[in-house]
Amino acid sequence: MDTPAFQDFYPDSVAHCYGCGRLNDQGLRIRTHWEGEESVTRFRPRPEHMAVPGYVYGGLIASLLDCHGTGTAAAAMYRLEERPMDSLPAFRFVTASLQVDYLRPTPIDCELEIRGRVLEIRGRRVIVEATLLADGVATARGRISAAQMPDSFT
Amino acid sequence: MDTPAFQDFYPDSVAHCYGCGRLNDQGLRIRTHWEGEESVTRFRPRPEHMAVPGYVYGGLIASLLDCHGTGTAAAAMYRLEERPMDSLPAFRFVTASLQVDYLRPTPIDCELEIRGRVLEIRGRRVIVEATLLADGVATARGRISAAQMPDSFT
Repeated sequence: MDTPAFQDFYPDSVAHCYGCGRLNDQGLRIRTHWEGEESVTRFRPRPEHMAVPGYVYGGLIASLLDCHGTGTAAAAMYRLEERPMDSLPAFRFVTASLQVDYLRPTPIDCELEIRGRVLEIRGRRVIVEATLLADGVATARGRISAAQMPDSFT
Repeated sequence: MDTPAFQDFYPDSVAHCYGCGRLNDQGLRIRTHWEGEESVTRFRPRPEHMAVPGYVYGGLIASLLDCHGTGTAAAAMYRLEERPMDSLPAFRFVTASLQVDYLRPTPIDCELEIRGRVLEIRGRRVIVEATLLADGVATARGRISAAQMPDSFT
């Protein structure tokens, strides 16, 4: 098995998200890791994820950026507190707002890479900026404002 | 058969979008109509579209707002030109940017309603604002900047 991803540490009770929940067997199940100061998700679109033949639909891109952002927010909080991701209490974030700029069409027949950075942590709120690349070319940019879930969920 | 939706008029060559293409049999196939000055989409989430049990994941909401926006943009252009949606040349839009504000959790076990308004038409660009309601309660707001596809696509 490869290195555990951020999402591998989500408590079972909050690991069903269609975008990033490891317990949602019909979902996208994205997986995110640190690479230095950047968080990185790699994802291969399914053929049906098209906008027009050959290109990815915008909703998938928004979904990837969204869940990449909430995962990065959780991981950033563990880093801030200098404790491992399997320690308690668990961090789990939801999206408060999402901005996506579509720079150019995203080809569907390649692995997509999302690279994120934490811009700001303020209390229970984390701002993440991320770029989506297809074959190394930036095709979309996102900014996610993630809010820590109420403790009752985790 | 019920009243044709905006998406029923997309040319076959650009009717495969996962979010709104009538020819994508694995997609969401949203359908949008005018109700006066507002464009309206109704959609029932699938059980797997959850964020946490009981609530819709943010990526679905972004996808619905996105495709609702591009559909509304196309319909608005036919209105502007005072011609029916089955006339040529066809209008088809892609998303240039998308902003979503998640106001509160969106329950999954009800029909969602997206209500949109055209804010601005400038050349080949249309700005649409939309609200997502669950059981009549606004749970998310979106702003979509839609750009007309290059003529070569349609």
